[in-house]
Amino acid sequence: MNKNNFAVTPPMGWNSYDYYDTTVNEEQIRANARYMAEHLKEYGWEYIVVDIQWYAHDAGSRRERYQYIPFGRLEMDGYGRLQPDPARFPSSADNAGFRPLADYVHSLGCKFGIHIMRGIPRTAAQEHLPVWGSAVTADEIADPSSICGWNPDMYGVRNCPEGQAYYDSLLELYSEWGVDFIKCDDICNTNLYANNPYSARHEVEMLAKAIEKCGREIVLSLSPGPALIAQAWHYETFANMWRITDDFWDDWRLLKDMFHRCELWQSHVSKGCYPDCDMLPLGSLGKGFGRERLTNFTEQEQRTMMTLWCLFGSPLMIGAELTKLDAHTLELLTNREILAMLPPECKPRQLALDEDKAIWTAANSDSGEVYVALFNLRDEALEVALDLRKADIAVHAPWKELWTGEKRSAGETIITEKLPTHGCAVFRSRI
Amino acid sequence: MNKNNFAVTPPMGWNSYDYYDTTVNEEQIRANARYMAEHLKEYGWEYIVVDIQWYAHDAGSRRERYQYIPFGRLEMDGYGRLQPDPARFPSSADNAGFRPLADYVHSLGCKFGIHIMRGIPRTAAQEHLPVWGSAVTADEIADPSSICGWNPDMYGVRNCPEGQAYYDSLLELYSEWGVDFIKCDDICNTNLYANNPYSARHEVEMLAKAIEKCGREIVLSLSPGPALIAQAWHYETFANMWRITDDFWDDWRLLKDMFHRCELWQSHVSKGCYPDCDMLPLGSLGKGFGRERLTNFTEQEQRTMMTLWCLFGSPLMIGAELTKLDAHTLELLTNREILAMLPPECKPRQLALDEDKAIWTAANSDSGEVYVALFNLRDEALEVALDLRKADIAVHAPWKELWTGEKRSAGETIITEKLPTHGCAVFRSRI
Amino acid sequence: MNKNNFAVTPPMGWNSYDYYDTTVNEEQIRANARYMAEHLKEYGWEYIVVDIQWYAHDAGSRRERYQYIPFGRLEMDGYGRLQPDPARFPSSADNAGFRPLADYVHSLGCKFGIHIMRGIPRTAAQEHLPVWGSAVTADEIADPSSICGWNPDMYGVRNCPEGQAYYDSLLELYSEWGVDFIKCDDICNTNLYANNPYSARHEVEMLAKAIEKCGREIVLSLSPGPALIAQAWHYETFANMWRITDDFWDDWRLLKDMFHRCELWQSHVSKGCYPDCDMLPLGSLGKGFGRERLTNFTEQEQRTMMTLWCLFGSPLMIGAELTKLDAHTLELLTNREILAMLPPECKPRQLALDEDKAIWTAANSDSGEVYVALFNLRDEALEVALDLRKADIAVHAPWKELWTGEKRSAGETIITEKLPTHGCAVFRSRI
Amino acid sequence: MNKNNFAVTPPMGWNSYDYYDTTVNEEQIRANARYMAEHLKEYGWEYIVVDIQWYAHDAGSRRERYQYIPFGRLEMDGYGRLQPDPARFPSSADNAGFRPLADYVHSLGCKFGIHIMRGIPRTAAQEHLPVWGSAVTADEIADPSSICGWNPDMYGVRNCPEGQAYYDSLLELYSEWGVDFIKCDDICNTNLYANNPYSARHEVEMLAKAIEKCGREIVLSLSPGPALIAQAWHYETFANMWRITDDFWDDWRLLKDMFHRCELWQSHVSKGCYPDCDMLPLGSLGKGFGRERLTNFTEQEQRTMMTLWCLFGSPLMIGAELTKLDAHTLELLTNREILAMLPPECKPRQLALDEDKAIWTAANSDSGEVYVALFNLRDEALEVALDLRKADIAVHAPWKELWTGEKRSAGETIITEKLPTHGCAVFRSRI
Repeated sequence: MNKNNFAVTPPMGWNSYDYYDTTVNEEQIRANARYMAEHLKEYGWEYIVVDIQWYAHDAGSRRERYQYIPFGRLEMDGYGRLQPDPARFPSSADNAGFRPLADYVHSLGCKFGIHIMRGIPRTAAQEHLPVWGSAVTADEIADPSSICGWNPDMYGVRNCPEGQAYYDSLLELYSEWGVDFIKCDDICNTNLYANNPYSARHEVEMLAKAIEKCGREIVLSLSPGPALIAQAWHYETFANMWRITDDFWDDWRLLKDMFHRCELWQSHVSKGCYPDCDMLPLGSLGKGFGRERLTNFTEQEQRTMMTLWCLFGSPLMIGAELTKLDAHTLELLTNREILAMLPPECKPRQLALDEDKAIWTAANSDSGEVYVALFNLRDEALEVALDLRKADIAVHAPWKELWTGEKRSAGETIITEKLPTHGCAVFRSRI
Repeated sequence: MNKNNFAVTPPMGWNSYDYYDTTVNEEQIRANARYMAEHLKEYGWEYIVVDIQWYAHDAGSRRERYQYIPFGRLEMDGYGRLQPDPARFPSSADNAGFRPLADYVHSLGCKFGIHIMRGIPRTAAQEHLPVWGSAVTADEIADPSSICGWNPDMYGVRNCPEGQAYYDSLLELYSEWGVDFIKCDDICNTNLYANNPYSARHEVEMLAKAIEKCGREIVLSLSPGPALIAQAWHYETFANMWRITDDFWDDWRLLKDMFHRCELWQSHVSKGCYPDCDMLPLGSLGKGFGRERLTNFTEQEQRTMMTLWCLFGSPLMIGAELTKLDAHTLELLTNREILAMLPPECKPRQLALDEDKAIWTAANSDSGEVYVALFNLRDEALEVALDLRKADIAVHAPWKELWTGEKRSAGETIITEKLPTHGCAVFRSRI
Repeated sequence: MNKNNFAVTPPMGWNSYDYYDTTVNEEQIRANARYMAEHLKEYGWEYIVVDIQWYAHDAGSRRERYQYIPFGRLEMDGYGRLQPDPARFPSSADNAGFRPLADYVHSLGCKFGIHIMRGIPRTAAQEHLPVWGSAVTADEIADPSSICGWNPDMYGVRNCPEGQAYYDSLLELYSEWGVDFIKCDDICNTNLYANNPYSARHEVEMLAKAIEKCGREIVLSLSPGPALIAQAWHYETFANMWRITDDFWDDWRLLKDMFHRCELWQSHVSKGCYPDCDMLPLGSLGKGFGRERLTNFTEQEQRTMMTLWCLFGSPLMIGAELTKLDAHTLELLTNREILAMLPPECKPRQLALDEDKAIWTAANSDSGEVYVALFNLRDEALEVALDLRKADIAVHAPWKELWTGEKRSAGETIITEKLPTHGCAVFRSRI
Repeated sequence: MNKNNFAVTPPMGWNSYDYYDTTVNEEQIRANARYMAEHLKEYGWEYIVVDIQWYAHDAGSRRERYQYIPFGRLEMDGYGRLQPDPARFPSSADNAGFRPLADYVHSLGCKFGIHIMRGIPRTAAQEHLPVWGSAVTADEIADPSSICGWNPDMYGVRNCPEGQAYYDSLLELYSEWGVDFIKCDDICNTNLYANNPYSARHEVEMLAKAIEKCGREIVLSLSPGPALIAQAWHYETFANMWRITDDFWDDWRLLKDMFHRCELWQSHVSKGCYPDCDMLPLGSLGKGFGRERLTNFTEQEQRTMMTLWCLFGSPLMIGAELTKLDAHTLELLTNREILAMLPPECKPRQLALDEDKAIWTAANSDSGEVYVALFNLRDEALEVALDLRKADIAVHAPWKELWTGEKRSAGETIITEKLPTHGCAVFRSRI
């Protein structure tokens, strides 16, 4: 089993975080899965991911003070493995775990993913619970100095065979449940440890080994960002995707900054290996955070985001509550010509980046398709132009702008477009 | 009550760490206290300090793997306040705590001190124990993101009235026990937090307030070092002493380096405020660490250390097992003329420091005594000289070297001495 | 000669920078000196300091592009020693240097100071000029890798006997001129060298030695700040004053920040050793910078500044063009009761500092006078109070507020004052 | 003209630095060129590069004190453009510059390269020399704050049209001379500026533009390293090669460390874009440094170096004096099967790296050839093995080890080799 063979294009799906924070329940997951199956699946969207603290009783109940209630009650089996909170996930009763929910998602033709925090529950260590498949107890493998700076649930796991046994026991469970995707948190950048922000490097390897051992094709996604460029080889070797930013929200400054991050990571996109620009904060957002709203992104900014994420080859995870999706957003997410830039065969390359503009190109070695994208980063309209000869781009087919359908002649030597504030244009042709 | 009024000279005493590590027991404490009362007390030595993990069951029993056994059993009352391990401290039975042992130490005319880790036991938070004097439970005041990087016992306490209540409850207990000295650890430099190494600043203030409230004159000592020079005012305002180095051991490189630290802190020694050069690793050391030995310091280095600590005005804590003290070391520790430099009225001032040598002077504004100390930092003999006129030092009495008794005329304009490797000379006169 | 014996109180004077930038000329210096002699001298103000680039032809003539014209013509003797620009300083003709101007200032009973950049002119190195008193040429002692990040005139001098000869030749010249004060720049913090910001440490020592050799009592002032607290001993040993901030201007944020810097340096004020809060940007400012204006400080802020500078014991250098001084500013600068806090016998001590307020005290060991200053750091009125018992302050005379003359009883246990935005009150009593 | 079209494989050549330091002369260059033409050219070696300070009179004459004599005499034309020192390069007389020498090198079928320091000579700025093709003088474009930390010759050039004119004038000259390769120094990492080590970013762009304008296909090589991974896109866009280490010498620790640097840069090798592992310190070295010697690398280390450089795709520049080359070294440099890994079509990929070993693979998309290299990083013999299935490597031809010729069956699932200290094996097969 090779992890590069089971995520041959950037994963596309939906994640509960941006709308529900820690509060999502089974019925909501099912509703979003149904929406995906009906409206989005045919365009490639398939993953339904239950984000953080599905195992926490009372999650979200003290939101004015805590995002994550410290020392709260976590649903856990006798081997220190977290289980879904039965109050929110009724089908998990009788030790069924996420199996029934995963089955339901699978029955819709979708895939099922979960969020986990790296490590072992603090409670398991405190209570000296046995580690499945080993002769030791949790206190022996939990590293009391290895914690998450923002979530109180876990201790990091020591780099030893018994620690591997714990991760193996997790993946055996997840495999039984039918999990297809794991978003592991506090692992890509353990920023509490400012002098050693990849302090959980060994846990990445343990997770990768555990996935391989369990035999199920489970995509491994690492959070939070920013990933460390000096560790690029390690991420590529052991994971399928890794976050290149801290949490991304509907704020132009974050979107503008993403161009710099894409510049940094553009050479590291390949089959099974995806630098991750984070979720798409579109549509309805923020209910679990106590401020439900429609995205703050303008329509131009939304196009700019979709264009960059697709051209770059980032995984795509919708943050919106799907059942509330409006027609405009649905259209944005189902533009087949834009989504066609996503596969890693379509290699992205930045041509220019400054305070005013970004220019990218991409070329699909299989199809011969060539793309040129112009982005206006200013807070006013701007004409952006590319001299195709200088960029060594020669094509034989006419150019088509993918958001408007506008055509340009194949012989064009300079592509110019007057772009609205924060807007973009993306042209496609063929060599 | 003003903390500067109850440690008017740098505290002098004995501490269990250098010999016993985490393993010291009641009988050993008593034996050392008796030795102090008989042989050292008359020279000013008075504190008997029980160092780290007196509350830990099985402390030291897995030394090949752990200095501090993680998630081990800690003796604790129902309010999350640690108690002496009754197996090692039998007199603490029946909730007596350290009261009987403190009484014994007091009966010898000595003072009693304990080591604590900042914060509240992790177990107390996990178990939601009530906080004495407040309406909340430990999980509400424990900060799950605030830990010690090297000891697994505690969580930091949040900066809130209920957190203050916890520290108040501790000091109420210690006051009842008869504690005279608290060495609080993981607080002077919380180096796990590389970007915020004084992250427990508020806990220093809470401790100071709790001492004031309890009404007992308890010296507050902060560890570990290096203290942060940018926080000097804060240490001086709230504590009596603070470590200016990481753990100091019997290694010449550490002793040589101390000259730089004394340079840095020399303006910050005053009544009730003592930058702390750490324990004196003399005599028998290291048993609890599994390598009992006599100090690695040469006799010259021992003199250099005693001279620097006294002239600078550092607290003096003996690391040696006192019952094994040899005549030489006892003599070293009871040189009244050297110890006379200790009080803060005797102001230290560095005159020179380079790779080869250090030269210090000190002047006692009360007695009119003036000191000049010459130190050889090289690994071979060296003549060190001071031009007294350039240093603006004028005296009317003859000079006397305090280790040898050698005399020099008051009219001397240059003080010169051929010093052996790592050796020193210290001259006293009077204006 | 001991440098601590000739600046027994913090130097007080006037400096041409804040008003003239690089453009000041002889007539303007004379006019300001006359004003000082007539109106300020009796209050202790005495230094008249010619600031940067008095040696530069065309200084200030291309101000829209350069503060310091690179590779411009500098007036220099045959030994690489800079001379006054004769166009601006006519009395310097015929190799008279600053002698005539110094004589004039002395004739008024004032003292004369100059600004210098550390090092040797780049032109001298390029032209291989001989170094007076040595057998070498300038290229041998100029360090081509040691430059100033913001002024293009000089190279640093190498640490060698011939380098010392150059500094000796400078001081011999300055001594002949009658210089009483040298403000040496690019030396206290050589911040171009981010990893070694005290890279000119040896040049500080060379300057100190050269002053000692020349035999004239010349105050040595080091710029720019922020001085490095870890080098406090070195500054104290070799200089009379050193800047604890970057350039200070009439901006409340800078003034508020000064409280933190004073906290840091409060233990380092002593006879001949003065941490320097930088010039007083009062009255008319900025003409040479192309934006002549009255100070932006409110009257309350001006009082706050004067109170802090005096209580702390900073040198006082007026930035205003003196001939334009209004009555209010003159009064501010000649408040004898405020200025009485300046001498180092009056030891400052911070009692509190937070976002809202600062509280300081000072005690004059000679006179028995005690001061308490309350500062409002908020952007609105605030009542600030001090519990005198907690601060261990007991007095026998009534308190007098020094700006208003208001009295309080000696028995007062709490001193409270409602302070306007950014305002202060300073009370004096006696033990 | 596109810079990626004229260095379609990593440049291979000889550079004068490792043997001659600053002292090389025309006859020596000619002799090395002749050797290359006769013995190496047929294997792809073609560049003859004159390294640093060919313009400096007296270069190397004060080597006991200076590598680069500060403020020494540099041969320069009236426009601030450096010229060859006529004493060392007689053919440059009468303003011929490097034209005659370049002609000679070209006549042998080789290419001619020179080293330059970024910027404009300090002397040109001091003397206000005119800038060719502009209305300004050198003092207007020289940035007096932009220097090299280790070489005293130049100032950086400001980012303005007149600065571009200066670089244009340089390239016009070099183009006339027939230069094919420029190694520009103090530009890839300007480490004097610790907070801004890519401070000459604009000068990279100016050089690239000047090359494009001059119309000659001149390879642009940037030094020194380490290049900044965060600037990878910029290097790739404007240069042909950039140093990924500081100076590389014949020291195993540096060679071992190169594996980490190759890990970091492996995704950044492509046509016209070459991360540069620096010169090959083989054969006779060090004469100009005053310690002529044969390389300190063992034969195993030499193979390891050649294997890594070629597999990775680094430029290859021989450091040895060619006329003294022994048979062993010549053989090492002319192994066609090893050199065949060099082109960018042969994509390298690290499979493993730890303290003991490194394992790499490479695949040539044009030829179908596959390589596997095993490296022993320990100081003793070690067996290194690769499971080909885990690495997803399937081949149809037998494996051949390229240094020994040893064969292995195509069906092999694990490639194992017992490697001597610091040794390697590299196997080739075909898909």
